[in-house]
Order: sequence, then C-alpha cells, then structure tokens
Amino acid sequence: MSRVISVGPLPASRKAYRGELRVPVREIELTTGQVVERYDTSGPYTESDFRPDLDNGLPKIRKAWPRNYPTQLLAARAGEITTEMAYVAAREHLPAEVVRDEIAAGRAVLPANVNHPECEPMIIGKRFLVKVNANIGTSAVTSSPAEEVEKMVWATRWGADTVMDLSTGPRIHETREWILRNSPVPIGTVPIYQALERVNGDPTKLSWDVYRDVVIEQCEQGVDYMTVHAGVRMAYIPLTVGRKTGIVSRGGSILAAWCLAHHRENFLYTHFAELCEILRDYDVTFSLGDGLRPGSVYDANDDAQLAELRTLGELTQVAKAHGVQTMIEGPGHVPMDKIAENVKLQQEWCDEAPFYTLGPLATDVAPGYDHITSAIGAAMIAWHGTAMLCYVTPKEHLGLPDRDDVKAGVIAYKIAAHSADVAKGHPGAQDHDDQLSDARFEFRWADQFALALDPETAQSYHDETLPAAPAKTAHFCSMCGPKFCSMRISHDLRTSYADATEPAAAPNLALAEAGMAAKSAEFQAAGAKIYLPVVEP
Amino acid sequence: MSRVISVGPLPASRKAYRGELRVPVREIELTTGQVVERYDTSGPYTESDFRPDLDNGLPKIRKAWPRNYPTQLLAARAGEITTEMAYVAAREHLPAEVVRDEIAAGRAVLPANVNHPECEPMIIGKRFLVKVNANIGTSAVTSSPAEEVEKMVWATRWGADTVMDLSTGPRIHETREWILRNSPVPIGTVPIYQALERVNGDPTKLSWDVYRDVVIEQCEQGVDYMTVHAGVRMAYIPLTVGRKTGIVSRGGSILAAWCLAHHRENFLYTHFAELCEILRDYDVTFSLGDGLRPGSVYDANDDAQLAELRTLGELTQVAKAHGVQTMIEGPGHVPMDKIAENVKLQQEWCDEAPFYTLGPLATDVAPGYDHITSAIGAAMIAWHGTAMLCYVTPKEHLGLPDRDDVKAGVIAYKIAAHSADVAKGHPGAQDHDDQLSDARFEFRWADQFALALDPETAQSYHDETLPAAPAKTAHFCSMCGPKFCSMRISHDLRTSYADATEPAAAPNLALAEAGMAAKSAEFQAAGAKIYLPVVEP
Repeated sequence: MSRVISVGPLPASRKAYRGELRVPVREIELTTGQVVERYDTSGPYTESDFRPDLDNGLPKIRKAWPRNYPTQLLAARAGEITTEMAYVAAREHLPAEVVRDEIAAGRAVLPANVNHPECEPMIIGKRFLVKVNANIGTSAVTSSPAEEVEKMVWATRWGADTVMDLSTGPRIHETREWILRNSPVPIGTVPIYQALERVNGDPTKLSWDVYRDVVIEQCEQGVDYMTVHAGVRMAYIPLTVGRKTGIVSRGGSILAAWCLAHHRENFLYTHFAELCEILRDYDVTFSLGDGLRPGSVYDANDDAQLAELRTLGELTQVAKAHGVQTMIEGPGHVPMDKIAENVKLQQEWCDEAPFYTLGPLATDVAPGYDHITSAIGAAMIAWHGTAMLCYVTPKEHLGLPDRDDVKAGVIAYKIAAHSADVAKGHPGAQDHDDQLSDARFEFRWADQFALALDPETAQSYHDETLPAAPAKTAHFCSMCGPKFCSMRISHDLRTSYADATEPAAAPNLALAEAGMAAKSAEFQAAGAKIYLPVVEP
Repeated sequence: MSRVISVGPLPASRKAYRGELRVPVREIELTTGQVVERYDTSGPYTESDFRPDLDNGLPKIRKAWPRNYPTQLLAARAGEITTEMAYVAAREHLPAEVVRDEIAAGRAVLPANVNHPECEPMIIGKRFLVKVNANIGTSAVTSSPAEEVEKMVWATRWGADTVMDLSTGPRIHETREWILRNSPVPIGTVPIYQALERVNGDPTKLSWDVYRDVVIEQCEQGVDYMTVHAGVRMAYIPLTVGRKTGIVSRGGSILAAWCLAHHRENFLYTHFAELCEILRDYDVTFSLGDGLRPGSVYDANDDAQLAELRTLGELTQVAKAHGVQTMIEGPGHVPMDKIAENVKLQQEWCDEAPFYTLGPLATDVAPGYDHITSAIGAAMIAWHGTAMLCYVTPKEHLGLPDRDDVKAGVIAYKIAAHSADVAKGHPGAQDHDDQLSDARFEFRWADQFALALDPETAQSYHDETLPAAPAKTAHFCSMCGPKFCSMRISHDLRTSYADATEPAAAPNLALAEAGMAAKSAEFQAAGAKIYLPVVEP
C-alpha cells in the first residue's frame, strides 16, 4: 500500500503563518526581491520540512478554541466573532465584522465540524473569494485509504478549498477517518452513499433509521458539510420522465427509487427537522443537494430542477430556523444563456444562501474535455454570484479521475474562480494578474513561472523550446525570436518616450492627444467624410 | 523531411458530398442505424482512401466557377448569388439569399482568393456558425514546409475553419505555397512579417513599397485574408506608454517602431486606399488587425485599444467603399465583465463587420493553460456576437505549439464556438448535444464516443478503467458501478411510469402536478408558514 504523500513548497515559495492564530499564507519570493502573498489551502504539507504522520494526523489547531454556541450561525447572530471567524477574516483580508454579518445573514457558511479540529477555517459566500471543491473517493475496486489521503493533499496543493469524499465500497469509514485526520480543509460527504452500502445497495431498503445512524457516525468523525437530497419530493419525480437524461444525481436517483417503491414522500424531507437537530449539535453545514439537476443542456432550467430549487428554499428556512448553516447545490449542464437565471432564482428563492455549483457544463458534446466545457460555465456562474465551484475533471462521464485528472480539474477551476474574482472586482484579486503581467513584460521568466497557477507546467513548456538557463533571462522567447519580439519593441518605445525630456522631442501623451483632437476637428470640419489616404511624399 | 499526413475518416464516420456543388459533410453512423451529419472542414483528407499529393495539391474545385464581379461583396450588392454563396448556404443549411444579404451588408465575409481554387468556401458572420481559426507557421529554426502542411491538415481534421500561416524565416514563400495548394480551408497571413524579413528584421527600414510587393506576391499565391495593422496610428502610440504590458501584437509593435523612428504616420494608414485596390482585384478579405490590443487584463478596453478600434471603423468604411470584404480583429486579454462591451463597441463603430477575436483570456495567471483561460472568454464573446475565434494553445506565452498543442487548442475552441452556437439558439446547434445526451442516457458508449468532439480521447479515457468490449454496452460505468448508476435507476423509473397504464397506478404527471398544486394551496392557506416536518409514521 502506497504511503507516498506530496510534500514540500512550490517553486520559489515558502509557507508562512500570520499572527497569533497562525493563519497560513504562501509567500512567493520574486527575483526583484519583492515577496508576494497568496491565499493558501495546502496545510502543513507545503512547509519546507514537514513529515506527514498519517496515523496520528495533523495538529489539532482548533482543539482549544472556545465554543459558546452550537454553530457559527448562532454565534454570529448573537454578535460573537468566533476564533474561526477571526481566522477567515485574516485569510480573506476583510474585517471580522463582515465575516460575522455575512454568516449571521445566512449569506456565507463556515463549515467546521467541532470534531474536525485539524481543519483550517475557511468561508464560502459571495462576498468572499470564490472557492473550489475537489471530489475524491475510493470505489468498490480501486485505491486504498492512504492513496485517498494523497489525492486530498494533491488537490489542496493546487488550490482546492474543500474536498468531498465520495467513497463507496467496503472501507468507507476507514477511508474517511484517514482523510479527516489528515485534512487541513473542510471535508464534505454524501451520507446516502454509505447508507446504501448498509442496505447492500438496494435503495428500496433504505429508511430514516439507517440514514440517521450514518449521519451521526459521520458527524462524530468530523465531516464538515453533507450533501442532503431532501428536495427530491415524490411529486417532482414524474417531472423528470420527459427529460433527455432523466435523473443524473446518484443521490437523487436513489431517493427517487425509494419514493417510487414505497409511494411515500422522501424520508429526508419528512425528517428534515430531526436532521437539522443532529447537524446543529456538531455544527455540520447543510449542502442541500440538487438531486434533480439537469444532466444535459436540453434539461436545463426545467420544471423538475426549478420545483426542487423552490423546495430547497423552503428547507433553507427550516435549517436556518434551527441555527444550521446551509448552502445550496446547483447544476450541472446549462447553456450560457441560462446561467444567470440559475443564480438569480437560487438567490431569490433561497434567501441568498451560498450557491455551490457543479460546473455547469456549457455544452454536452466534449466528453474527455469536460473540465473545459464546465470551466466556461463555472467562471460565468461564479461571476454572477456562485460562492463555491465543484470541479469537473477530464474523466467526467467516462471514468474515475487519476492524479493528473485531479490536478487538471483543480487548475481549470482555479482559473474559473479567479476569473470570476477579477470580473467581480474582488479587492486584491487582480493583483495576481498584474504581478504576473509585470513579470511577463519585464522578461522575468522565473517570476512568471512562480506566479503561475501551475509553475511546473509553465516552466516545462518553456523548457521544451528554450531549455538553457540564459533563456530564462532573455528578452525574447521562442515564439517570435529576438527580431520580432513585440514586448522588446515596446520597451524600446517606452525608453524613447522616457528619454524625451526635452519638450520638443518625441511626441508625449499630451501632444498626441492634442494631435488626435486636431485631426478629429479637421475630420469634422471636412464634413466627417471618410478618410481618403494621400500618397506618401 | 517528414511527409506524413494524417488521413482517413474519424471513428464511425465517412465523408460524403451533397448536391451538384459537392458540399462536404461528415456522416456519423450510430449503432441505432441512424446517420447524423456534421459540418466538415477537413477536406478530402478524411475520405476513406485519399492519397495526398503534396506536390500537385488538392483538386481545384473553384477553377471553373464563374466570376462576374471582382469580389463577393460587389456580387452580393449587385444581387448575385455566386457559386461560393450557394456552397456556403448549403453548408450552413440556410437560404442562399441570407448568405448574399449578409455579405452585401458587410455583416459577413466569404474569404476566397480567386487564386485559391482548392478552397472549400465558408462564411464568417454572426448569423452563421461561429468559426475557429488555428495559427500555424515555421519559425527561424523549426519545422519544414511539409510539416506545416501536416499541421494544417491536423488542425482542420479537428475542426479548424481557417488557418493562419504565421511563418517567419527563410522559407516563408515556399511554406505558404505548400500550405495553400494543399489547404481546403481559407488561409490567412500577416504580410508585415514577410515584409520585415525583406528588410532583414529592421522595422525602421520598412516602406510602403516593400510592403506592397509582399502583399501582391501573397495575393498572387492565393492567400484568402490578410491581417493589416492600419489602425496603429502614430498618435495612439503614446497611449500605450502607461500600460502594464505595452504593445503585444507583433505587427502593432513593428509599425509603432516604424512610426517612432520616422515620426511619420503609419504607412498602412496613409496607403490604405491603394491596399484596398490590390486586395479587391484578388478578392482578398481584410482582417483589420488590432495592433494595440491589450496584453493583460489591466490594459483591457483602455484608450489605446478603443482609439484604434474607432480607426478600424473608419477604415472599414474605406474598404467597403472599395468593394473589399472586411472583418475586424479583437483582443486579447479581457476580464469577463468587460467582454460584452468589446463586441458592442466593435459592432457599433465598425458597422457590424464580422468580429474575429483572439480569445480573449479572462485572466493572466495561468500560463500553460491559456487554451482554457481563453476558451472562457472566447465562448462568452462569441455568444455576444463574435463571428470567428482565433485559437490559443497551451503553449501561449511560453513556446511554439506542437501537434498535441494544436489539437488541444482547436478542441478547446470548438467547445467555445459550439457553446456559443447553443447559447445563441443557432438552428440545429443543440442537435449535437441532444444526440450525444441521448447516446449517454441509453448507454450507447460507442455512439457517445463517435459523437464527441474528440472520439479518440473519449474512448481512451473510458478504456482506462473499463477496457473490455462488453463494457461498451454495459448499462453502467466505472464511476458509480452497477449499484449506484443514476441513469440506470432513471430508466427503471421511466419503465415504471410507462407500465402504469391503469389510471390508479403510480403517480403520473397530471396527478403529480395536481398534488403539487394542492400542497401549494395548503401551504398558502396555512399562512405560507415554513414547512414543519412531521415524524414518519
């Protein structure tokens, strides 16, 4: 059984901790001497000499933190700024009051089970950085618990903010235990999967009792948020019959099968208040699942999806009345013209609870590339207000993701999330772009790699055509070569203008503008006729 | 020197030609017996037994077609439907009158040099399918003419609608000749690159005479459209000095350097009318270059970019007055919130001339993944009305694309273009999605692969976990296994409803809706209080 865990800092980077709470950051030292800072999700694994001890797990940083209220939501409502809130405020460079108020209003969640003391607190809400979730998990035949720990470490190394353990198969409890004890990020699960294992895979044998026991077991272990498909009401199931792709959510289809077999309402819906009481005791966050999400662009925004969304809004009210933090899951497959509507309706019907979407894929036609089809939809939906994006890997629809697929999925989603942060004008987000663009313009190749979302790939691509060390400081690259380099010419231009200290020298900005104005006036005076070029003297 | 050219049909596909004009289509035969049709850009290379003859080139299909007007634009204005127009109308499944009228209005271009008889006509305009261009070309040190032919064949095999030959280096004429004679798609160039070669790479030595001779040489060879940076006016150059990344267009920087050295207006601007006359004689289409496009999100939509765009609008009028077809190039690097404005201003200022954009990249932070950062921007800008997208490969900013990069770029851009077609509601576009989703829901794995943008990759990913032939007809996949398969459960549900022929059987849609309505009424009657779950009996 492999126990290889990816450790050590990223290129030109070092782990640092800020303040009394020891809030983690990644410092990148540039060749200019400047040190820039990045939000960091990778836990102690990227310290320079960290040795993972999988049997004993990570340090229990939250163990001694006070807990005056059952949940962060109740604390926030009471006006308290918890240690967790102070921690995420420092991480996000925002006042702790903003964190508290967003949680109190139900517009943000801070998923942190009291039994997951290893977790570095983070926040999910539209006022904060857009987050990315990566799914991992064993299936019946593949991989071991330690391998799943490595997948979690690997995903967070590239920037995953939370990880969902979707394990099935016989070692489901043990795998989750290994992941939780070694995870610096919140862990989410879908308890119905384990419940189904308990009844030997026959959905008709499921019951509230079986499900409840599984939920309590997972709460005890420290799961931070749980997908609960309580919105799949019996009456909505017939709405899926005319669909192109029926029900594509595993949880949704399991519950639909149960409802149909018993001709009774979904037991998660009828027992929702009890479930709230359990989750409240551990401060586990609801991720209200969209069991009827569309599995094709044809089915997007249809009656089944929207009927369930309305119910999720109703359940959000119940959960909040119980003091339980809640977010809402979203689709799936949605063409670009229907993306904004998803966020609008979700925000309206669910009282601005954080939206957590899977993609969505903007088209169905590219299996093998669904990290791209969905990064398009993900970037757009996050710009419109989605708080967290669940990644999709290149293997979606085709098979189980391996290590490379996990990385490809995380990077594609960091691109989507960051693009949204920039488009939203999130404070400081564009600094990353500007730092990298400065490095690019100044031919600081090493800095360009270090500042890239994936420094190793960026450098390896550059090495393919210009591997020599001097090329890393060359004022051109392999694309255009020295003669054609537009950026080098731009530098020459800039130097020329900078040299033009004499008023009568090369045109400066004011002169140029005056020239343009004169030209424009001349054009207007001539009757705004189209320009007729003259022969050059 | 390698002469290996990729030939033969894609999986489950065969080339067919429709009607007297022999308009090419790709037929995909599904396992159901159904045959579906795809727009096809791959030329004779995907016939089942085509043998390329690189020395003699492709059949000259347009050789005998009549030419009554110097350009398609002039013909359209005169009310004529040319053979080329009839051909693209058949390709796009639209009336020939629509094609003619869009060209006449300048809202579409049909780039087809009279000296490129091998070209299968295609159209670029917002009323038509969104098109994708792939850039290829030798640099000073790498690759041979035959290798560039293979890159062109390879790019069109995966769906590139046009190819730009950006070759530099000593064999520039010979390489272009090989590409043109063997290309079934329009070929674009940037003549200033060859002009710069003529003056040994010193931009200050450029002149209108040198440039004009290069343009005539390329027109004679059969180049279908040319990027001309005539909008880089001298007065705009100082507007780039405060930029984060200066001038990033090679052509733009070359001309800026010339202007600065001579303190004279850009000779492409002052000689634009002469240039129009040359291009008109060969029916070469202008691609008015955005030499001042932003090279970072910081510089997006700035004064330099917009000043040039206004000038491109002015030049569009001049070109159209000369009867020359014209499209407009666009950025570059643009955050999502500024994308719609780009199309809006371009359409307004350039009289709805087709927009042809490079990406744009939605963020600067992911070198190595710029096919993804830019597919996000490309999908969005195409949805807003861009007619053709210039691809970006994973090597952008880092090195020269190899064969795998060309494919990755083309596929990412086919995803973007098709996502836009679907979002625009382009007639028939979503059929592709629906066909694939049907195959997916019915577990027709072979059909799912055949209908994918990249059948080989889709199948290889599936093979990784379930390689056995029976798995290709299995009613589950490796992701969930047989117990958990949501789609299988959906089928069971559908069967149950279909079996419910007795009125009193399982709930049907009408009953369910009645039930929902009753529930809703009950909820309202109870004062619209939030739902309080009851304990299950």
